Order: sequence, then structure tokens, then C-alpha cells
Amino acid sequence: MKWIDWNTLDEMERTAALARPVQARADQLRHGVERIIDAVRAKGDAALRELSARYDRCALDAIEVGEDEFAAADARLAPELKIAIQEAAARIDAFHRVAAPQPAGVNTAVGVRVERVLRPINRVGLYVPAGSAPLPSTALMLGVPARIAGCREVVLCSPARADGNCDEAVLYAARAVGVHRVFKLGGAQAIAAMAYGTGSVPRCDKLFGPGNTWVTEAKLQVSSDPEGAAIDMPAGPSEVLVIADAQANPIFVAADLLSQAEHGPDSQVILVSPSGTLLDSVAAEVERQCAALPRGAIAEQALAQSRLIQVDSLAQAMAVSNRYAPEHLILQVAAARDLLADVESAGSVFVGAWTPESVGDYCSGSNHVLPTYGYARSYSGVSVASYQKQITVQELDPNGLRAIGPCAATLAAAEQLEAHRRAVTLRLAALGMNV
Amino acid sequence: MKWIDWNTLDEMERTAALARPVQARADQLRHGVERIIDAVRAKGDAALRELSARYDRCALDAIEVGEDEFAAADARLAPELKIAIQEAAARIDAFHRVAAPQPAGVNTAVGVRVERVLRPINRVGLYVPAGSAPLPSTALMLGVPARIAGCREVVLCSPARADGNCDEAVLYAARAVGVHRVFKLGGAQAIAAMAYGTGSVPRCDKLFGPGNTWVTEAKLQVSSDPEGAAIDMPAGPSEVLVIADAQANPIFVAADLLSQAEHGPDSQVILVSPSGTLLDSVAAEVERQCAALPRGAIAEQALAQSRLIQVDSLAQAMAVSNRYAPEHLILQVAAARDLLADVESAGSVFVGAWTPESVGDYCSGSNHVLPTYGYARSYSGVSVASYQKQITVQELDPNGLRAIGPCAATLAAAEQLEAHRRAVTLRLAALGMNV
Repeated sequence: MKWIDWNTLDEMERTAALARPVQARADQLRHGVERIIDAVRAKGDAALRELSARYDRCALDAIEVGEDEFAAADARLAPELKIAIQEAAARIDAFHRVAAPQPAGVNTAVGVRVERVLRPINRVGLYVPAGSAPLPSTALMLGVPARIAGCREVVLCSPARADGNCDEAVLYAARAVGVHRVFKLGGAQAIAAMAYGTGSVPRCDKLFGPGNTWVTEAKLQVSSDPEGAAIDMPAGPSEVLVIADAQANPIFVAADLLSQAEHGPDSQVILVSPSGTLLDSVAAEVERQCAALPRGAIAEQALAQSRLIQVDSLAQAMAVSNRYAPEHLILQVAAARDLLADVESAGSVFVGAWTPESVGDYCSGSNHVLPTYGYARSYSGVSVASYQKQITVQELDPNGLRAIGPCAATLAAAEQLEAHRRAVTLRLAALGMNV
Repeated sequence: MKWIDWNTLDEMERTAALARPVQARADQLRHGVERIIDAVRAKGDAALRELSARYDRCALDAIEVGEDEFAAADARLAPELKIAIQEAAARIDAFHRVAAPQPAGVNTAVGVRVERVLRPINRVGLYVPAGSAPLPSTALMLGVPARIAGCREVVLCSPARADGNCDEAVLYAARAVGVHRVFKLGGAQAIAAMAYGTGSVPRCDKLFGPGNTWVTEAKLQVSSDPEGAAIDMPAGPSEVLVIADAQANPIFVAADLLSQAEHGPDSQVILVSPSGTLLDSVAAEVERQCAALPRGAIAEQALAQSRLIQVDSLAQAMAVSNRYAPEHLILQVAAARDLLADVESAGSVFVGAWTPESVGDYCSGSNHVLPTYGYARSYSGVSVASYQKQITVQELDPNGLRAIGPCAATLAAAEQLEAHRRAVTLRLAALGMNV
């Protein structure tokens, strides 16, 4: 990990110190994904079978997971894991329900009722990657809010293993949270299938979930096409920023940094502290713990790009964090709760020594699909609101139109939109009021 | 207007009947906008001056509106218009406050606190077009929710007139709702300036507002670039769908259709009714009213692409509307409120005979920046939430980690993420609990 003394840097060096690894949207990737999307649109299920054989090395019999496969997964899964999935789903459900948008309404004038009603997005498509390992937790994070929102049809795609079956835990989690249909598809072809529909896969209105660069590029492409589908948010590699003070436990801090670093070679981890001693002891502890990890080689590559940043105060540490806008922000300081008010941009915040990022990844109840790569400046994580439309409604009675019609007519005249004005004045005239 | 009998159509003909005018993202437009963005990024303010001279035909002295210009606008504006702007702003404020997201929190287990806090997006950029006429109402619709959200810096761009000044009503409206800085910029160059920053214009985190095809394309391009800015939503031409029954007043219905049609030749208006008589009389009335409109020629072009659709029931009318997903939905039927429950996809709904779309465009309190072009299937209109980030927070005490830590450890093991597991088990071990 690279050691940086923040106060010796000028403005450009500070920007460079917080730069993310470049995610070049290489032409090769872009065109490769275009070709896959075109193939799925042109040839539907036949293209899905071809692409699955080529990329996932599996010969798909049925594209959709059937009842037999769900039942077999249920029979094979360890009871302990089933319980953990159910427990996590229950807590995710509890928090997401509490944080869900509520209908609202107010009379903005006598006879003028204005409301905001909520409607589920009809058909949503969830993507659950299974690259280095299957991710049942992602099925929970995407499925629970869809169920709370009341989406009519919840579709999930996850790549099959070479044996042609989906991971049992993913299937169990999907069923546990009410996903309606699961398809054994991965990569850009899964995204294309859900965005445009095929014989087997229904066309979805909005797509959710993380993925590799092919999935991410495909989501970007279908979301730029009015015939395609909306997406949850743009994505980049996962990242964590930890703010720790001299009293933080270096063993815990190191473990949190490593839990991010093991995600992939392009993961980014940053530790910011006013204490040089803490930075030193965490660096040593990271090295010690990393050596004992099964994914230690991956973590080492990520750590090579990561930083230890020394600052002069916790206030400056928070300024660095807000500038970086981390996906995950861990506050390992004595008065962690007090720092919260100064958090401006972050995906999810972990407060205090007993809150490792892992609990948010799995089962505290918050969502783990979060804005990365600086998008936390302007995007939020997935929530029930992500699966809903907020529709405004207005209803005027004659008194309402008498009250606010003249204001509308004046503004319409100023904007030289005479038909807008007349839609009001014709009605006012019918009420015996001439404007 | 084209008359269509819905029940004589097959599935493909129905899709065609509800097709939007094609918005080809022509290569010429795409490359033209790329060149403008590149120029603004490379040459900053100098490029803005050159482009304003070329496209807005005005020689900009200062790019930013100064106090003198605000004062002059204030002095020149008609008192009646000032009052209308203040009145509209107050009602928009009242509704948007009531509909704003609220913080939320819950204990998902003993010792596990999970919250959702709200933070404003720091710097937002609003775009107010001034093509055929200036649009002070758009300054209100974009500025009021930014103020409620508490955005630190609210920047607004609107093209100058040939005399080098901005429209007085736009300036007055901007000041009325607390916009911090106004720049005399239009088109793709305004979007580029706000997305990347120049010497004069600060770099904004998210951009809002309608615009012509150049503005729309520029917003799409900057939102696909991680170095760029987020945007409110994709855009297309404005549109309305009216559901009317035999008792509807054809004069009112025609006036509503025309208020949409006058926006531009590519606006789309659709009337759906189970009553052939009503369709007939509205068609005649549209013709009559259109002839008397200053923008009648524009409205006529829009009407040429528009449709009268006969259905067999109000339930079928609503099914047609949900399939189209209109930006504006007007319900001119006897029991309009009862239909509301069946609305699945729409930007904003206008209930009953006394609620013309114009009141929502200006001053009922709802927002007029709404999803068009079918995006109402998955997007919502602008609201306070559009200017905020929703950040999740979790805080566990030792008992909390004892309660949910084992669940996290089990799931981490299933996902083969050992460092995730250890971040939990190391802490549990420190608490004397071995998992």
C-alpha cells in the first residue's frame, strides 16, 4: 500500500492520490457487446444457447430453471445456509420496508389537491453474477426490494455452471424472496435478453445488479436505447475507505481493508488516519493477515493500488472521504457517530469498531448494491424506490381552478403558449370567470 | 388526427398505433455534440464564447449574469408576472416539501441499528431552454426542489437573447427560488460547461432540465462518462394522453390536446374514448380552436401524427394508456378519481374536468419535468429525491455483532469470501465468541 502525506500534496497531486483505476471503455469491449446484443435481438433463444455454449461452456437444455431444479437445490442445500439466507432476507426486508417511499398529498390551495402515488415498475430483471463464486446475497439484495415494491414479474438471470445447473444457494435465495422466474444466463447476453426479450425471456422495464465489464457495458448500452431498459446505476469496481484514529484496533481495520481487497485485482481500498502509528501497524497487520487468505494473491494486486493517507485531523479525513465519495465508508474512531453528520457522499456507512463491512454485505438489512467509482457523488444505492415510479396527481374542483387558474394563465402568456392559456381560460369562462 | 378502432387491430398494429415518432440519434448529431463537448473541455470559456457567437448569435461580455442584470430584470418585469411567479413557487414548494423523502431507521436485531440518511447532491446544474420562448416555469420546477434538498450550489444555464441578456422572467424566477449563479449559455455547450467545468462555470455533479435534441444528446453523452455528470432522466418530445367518456366536454378536451400540440411539431397527443360521438366532436372542436391559435401551424403538424382511439370500455382505455405510458395523463371522465387506482405508468395525472394540464405545467405544485417517450414505464418526474443521495448507515454494538455476525460468516463462507468472513470472526473472537 502506498503511503501518502495529504498535507504535502498540492491540488493536482491530491486529485491524483484519489484517482480510481482507469476503466477504459475499450472499443473492443464496446463492439463485442454490441455484437452480442445484436445477436440476441436477431436470433433470440438460439443466440442465447450459442453464447452460453461459447462463454459459460455449458450446453443449455432449458434456458429457464424449472421446478425440478428448484426442488433439487432445496434438497441439496445445507440447512445452516438456508437459515442464514432466511435470516438475512428478513432483516433486509425489515429495513427496506421502513425506508420505502410513502404516498403523500397536500392541498396547495382551496380545491387543489396534489398527491404523489407509488406504482411498481411492472417487470424487473435482476442479474446475479457467478464469476469466481456464486452470490446468493446479491439475489437477496435485488429481490427483497422488488417484492416490497410489488413488481408484477421479477426475473433473475445467473450463469449456469458447466454442469448446466445454477448454484443451489442462488436458487434458494431467489425463491426465498419471491423471484418469479430464473434463467440460466450470464454476461452481456443475459442483459440483452432481459432488455429486449426473447422467446423464453420476458422483456423487462428495468435491470438491476452488479457484473463484470461485459455486463456493465451491456447495461450501459441498453439504457441508452429507448427501446432497451432502464438500469439501476452505472457501475465500477468495488471500494472501501476507512477512517481510523489512534485508538482503532489495527487487526479489525486490516481485516476490513482485506475484505474489500479480496473482491478483485481492481478493488480499491483506502485508509485515512491522523495517526502515523496506526497507519504503520495496519500496514503490518494487512501483510500478516493477507498471507493467510485463500484469495491472498488477488488481494495483493488490489493492495498494490491502494493507499494509506495521513491527514492532520478527523475533519480533514472526512474532507478526503467526501472528495473520494466511497462506495463503503467505515468509521473506526472513538466518537464515530459524531462524524456521521459530516458525511456528504458515500454509498453506505459503517459506524464504529463492531460494524465490519461484511455485515452490510450480507445481513444488517441495508443494501449492498451501491454506487462505486465516485458515483456516490450523485447516485444512491438500490432501495425500494429503485423499483417504483413516483407518479404525481392533481385534482381541481371549480373553486380550485378559480384560485390558481389566473396564475397559470399569466405564466402561459409570458411563455407565449396561448393554447396552454386557453385550456385554463375556456374553463374559467364556463365558470363565469373571465381572465 | 388519425382515427383508430382499437378492437380491429392485431397485436402488431396496436404496437404501431402507439409508436412514438422515431428519434433517430443521427451520427451527425452525435458527432456534432462530441465536437462541442471536446471544445469546451479543451478551451473552456473561450470555446463558450465562440459557440455562443455561432449558435446563439450573441457576443457574450460576461458569461455569468451579474447583479446589475438581475436588478434590471427585476425593475423591468411586470408586477403581475412577478406575483404569478412567487405564487407558483410557493405551491411548488408546498407540494415538494410534503413529498420529500424522510430519514428512516430501525433496529433489525438487538444492537443492530440501520438507518437511511439524506444528503443533498453538492452542486447541481439546471438547464432552462429559451428556444421559441423563455421558460421561467422551468426555472421554478428545477430550482425549488434543489432549494428544499439543500444543494450547496445551484447553477442555472439559459441562452442569452441576441442582445446579450437573459430573459427577465427567467432571471426573476431563478432568484425567487434561490438559484446561486446563472450563466448565459445554451445548447450542448451549456451542458458541457456544467458537466466538466470551465474557468467561469463550476463543475456540477448532476444536471437537470429539458432541451432540444442537442441538449438531450449532450446530457446523454456526459452521463455515460464517469468524468462527466449524472442527469435527471433521458428525454423525448412532450406528449399527452386523454381518456374521456361520453359526458366529457369536447371544448375542454380539445383545448387540452392543443395545449400539448403547440409545444412542437414532434409533440404527440392521443385521445382514447369508448364514445365515438365524443371522438367526433373533439375532432371538430380541435380544428375550430386550432385555427385561432398563434402557434396553430405548429399544433397542426403535431396533430397530423396524433390519434383518436376508440375503445370498448374505460378499462380498455386505461390498458391502452398503461401500454403507452404517457408523460401527461388526463382523465376527463365522470368518476375520474376511481380510475386512478388502475394507472400503472404515467408521469403526472390530471383528474377531472377542472384540471387542465396547464395547471400542472405551471402552478398546481407538481413538477412539470416528467418522463416522456415511454420512459414513464420506469422513470419518475423530478422531485426533491432527484437532488439527494440516500445513504445507508449501520451501527452494531457487541451484542449486535454477536446476534448477526454468525449469519454473515455463514454467507461469506458460502460465497468463498474468506476475508469477509474473518472481518466478522476476528471481532467475534475478541468478544470471546468463536464461530
